[in-house]
Amino acid sequence: MNSASLPTGFTASGTTCGIKQSGKPDLALFVSESAAAVAGVFTTNRVVGAPVIVSRERVLSETARAVIINSGNANACTGEQGLKDARQMTANVAASLGCDADDVLVCSTGIIGVPLPMNIISAGIPAAIEALDKSGGAYNSAATAMMTTDTFAKQTSVDVKLSTGSIRISGAAKGAAMIAPNMATMLAVIMTDASLSAAQCDQMLRYGVDRTFNCISVDGHTSTSDTVLLFASGTADAAPVTDDDHKTLRDAVQQICEKLATDIIRDAEGAGHFVTVDVTGFETREAAFKVAKEISESALVKTAITGNDPNWGRITSAAGYAGINFDTSFLSLKINNTEVFKAGTPVEYDESALSQQMNDNREVHLLLKLSGGPTSGSESVRFWTSDLTQEYVRLNSEYTT
Amino acid sequence: MNSASLPTGFTASGTTCGIKQSGKPDLALFVSESAAAVAGVFTTNRVVGAPVIVSRERVLSETARAVIINSGNANACTGEQGLKDARQMTANVAASLGCDADDVLVCSTGIIGVPLPMNIISAGIPAAIEALDKSGGAYNSAATAMMTTDTFAKQTSVDVKLSTGSIRISGAAKGAAMIAPNMATMLAVIMTDASLSAAQCDQMLRYGVDRTFNCISVDGHTSTSDTVLLFASGTADAAPVTDDDHKTLRDAVQQICEKLATDIIRDAEGAGHFVTVDVTGFETREAAFKVAKEISESALVKTAITGNDPNWGRITSAAGYAGINFDTSFLSLKINNTEVFKAGTPVEYDESALSQQMNDNREVHLLLKLSGGPTSGSESVRFWTSDLTQEYVRLNSEYTT
Repeated sequence: MNSASLPTGFTASGTTCGIKQSGKPDLALFVSESAAAVAGVFTTNRVVGAPVIVSRERVLSETARAVIINSGNANACTGEQGLKDARQMTANVAASLGCDADDVLVCSTGIIGVPLPMNIISAGIPAAIEALDKSGGAYNSAATAMMTTDTFAKQTSVDVKLSTGSIRISGAAKGAAMIAPNMATMLAVIMTDASLSAAQCDQMLRYGVDRTFNCISVDGHTSTSDTVLLFASGTADAAPVTDDDHKTLRDAVQQICEKLATDIIRDAEGAGHFVTVDVTGFETREAAFKVAKEISESALVKTAITGNDPNWGRITSAAGYAGINFDTSFLSLKINNTEVFKAGTPVEYDESALSQQMNDNREVHLLLKLSGGPTSGSESVRFWTSDLTQEYVRLNSEYTT
Repeated sequence: MNSASLPTGFTASGTTCGIKQSGKPDLALFVSESAAAVAGVFTTNRVVGAPVIVSRERVLSETARAVIINSGNANACTGEQGLKDARQMTANVAASLGCDADDVLVCSTGIIGVPLPMNIISAGIPAAIEALDKSGGAYNSAATAMMTTDTFAKQTSVDVKLSTGSIRISGAAKGAAMIAPNMATMLAVIMTDASLSAAQCDQMLRYGVDRTFNCISVDGHTSTSDTVLLFASGTADAAPVTDDDHKTLRDAVQQICEKLATDIIRDAEGAGHFVTVDVTGFETREAAFKVAKEISESALVKTAITGNDPNWGRITSAAGYAGINFDTSFLSLKINNTEVFKAGTPVEYDESALSQQMNDNREVHLLLKLSGGPTSGSESVRFWTSDLTQEYVRLNSEYTT
């Protein structure tokens, strides 16, 4: 358990209602004492779970009181019944909180294609309400109850000094980084006691998500349930008033997102290396993003890293097929700060030393740089990924529906 | 060895000049007795081998006499020296054939970033010329000399009846289906004695490649060397004269391409299943293609197939993130002719029987159909892929540069 805390104005709980056969916690609840400004970013998959449909609609009202999350069942590919069930979960929570069902959001994560066991969930919600608490322990319990194949709970918080005083931003996430629809998949709840409008929440959340959750990949599989929510209670005395305050807050939201997103990669199932991919010197952020994503999702790059092989050929050729126009004679590549490729050709370096370092550190940093040519520029993107191991294949091929 | 034959007007040879340390054949030569119409399709990777640069430029002249191919070294990421070496190989062949160097094309496949051993190759070319023969045995030797990690030589031929008589189309390919830059990678030479213009060659080749070589994927990694060439010698008595003849020929070229492309998938390293993915009912071919490609390249779909798991969730959600707009409530999925998903929800079926069948057959057929909604239509695409096994990861992570 880490020492992360909730912001003022928020309580949380993590309880066990019995969805999971393992008997592990499976119901998480986050509540704001009063209506909080809210924003959400949802999966772009065309196939979405019922909770995504319900929550996506409700964040448009710009405020919310709570989010109820169950693990063990994603309530996806469950048709009309799934939508009814998702709404029923929120209605049950709303009845206890004394608010509208529309003020409660909902997320579900776990197996897909199976209706929610609504009797179990309805019976469990009073206990979840009862357990609500503002302590770090309750926060940790909530993060724990979101887990599916995660091996550790992911929650974090940061205190931020604004010109008017201090506020806190806290975030909890789940993701075993399989990014798999069967264990669908990545959820995060971020809370702050800063005073923000829904539009400001939305802007800060999208900025942060674009640079963090959208820059991680284990297997390139976008789930049916991915959801990131930001609540701002406004209960802190301090409120952002200057442009600098807003930038400070935006950066802090990004920091929280980055901690949670990289924790997901660190928890990637079967992974042996944590990989940071920096792509720099491109004309547009979009071009750098495409190159970084292609490298991060290449099975050949990932298996090379598994084998501690500083394989510049696989990395530069993955960059080459990203659909971005660039002059390869201005391309260079560093692996863990050792230059292995420059001006479009390989350079001499101590390969066995670099390989040994990759083996010892289990962290790999790739820096691909374009330093000239008609399409070079000053845009950069950082991506995070894991390697591809026999253990990943074993886990994902031995799993049966 | 299969019984494939060369068309009239062509000879071939496969010899050993010593590039490969294993001592296996590494020099293939295909020659047309007279100038043949020619067309080529090349890798779209920005990082390309020197032979691609040379051959891509030369097919623009619309005729060629020969193509010289070495395996064991891809002559990629080798800078100016690589271009000189590629041109030197063609000059050596041209000197023996008594034609211009510009009339000779060149392909190289194997390791990248290492200069070609030009002394060895130059010394070997006379023997390659000497061994040229029109027999099926010589054809097989040439296909064998193209191999890198392939486990079998890939050559095929078909006799086609036109309104004016019979012609033959023959094709040889290499590809261990790792689609890997280190063993870069997919090459094919197709020859016919039909009389065609370069423009007709180009049209037929692109039509065929679009539906075959561009519809196979092992790991989504486009190589630096991929090349498919079509030569038409015009030495057959028969010549296509009607629109039907041209359609017959186009379909026969596609058939040859499909045989070679699917042979590459059947030879995929570490693969346990051969997978055919049919996507149908979309508004455009491009939309169906994107969906089929996303399914075929999903690590989660591929590992599910490895485990004989009819995992509709992974397949439909891969379709969902292909970036194509469709109404999921009109989506259905059959696996080996068993319907497992219909109208956006799973259906009841005998899962263990289907799984057993997947295990016994080692061939899997996925049929994803869109049967309504605003973006449905009549376009279909067929894709071929392999599964993703622990053996694939072992092969690609234990390989060291």
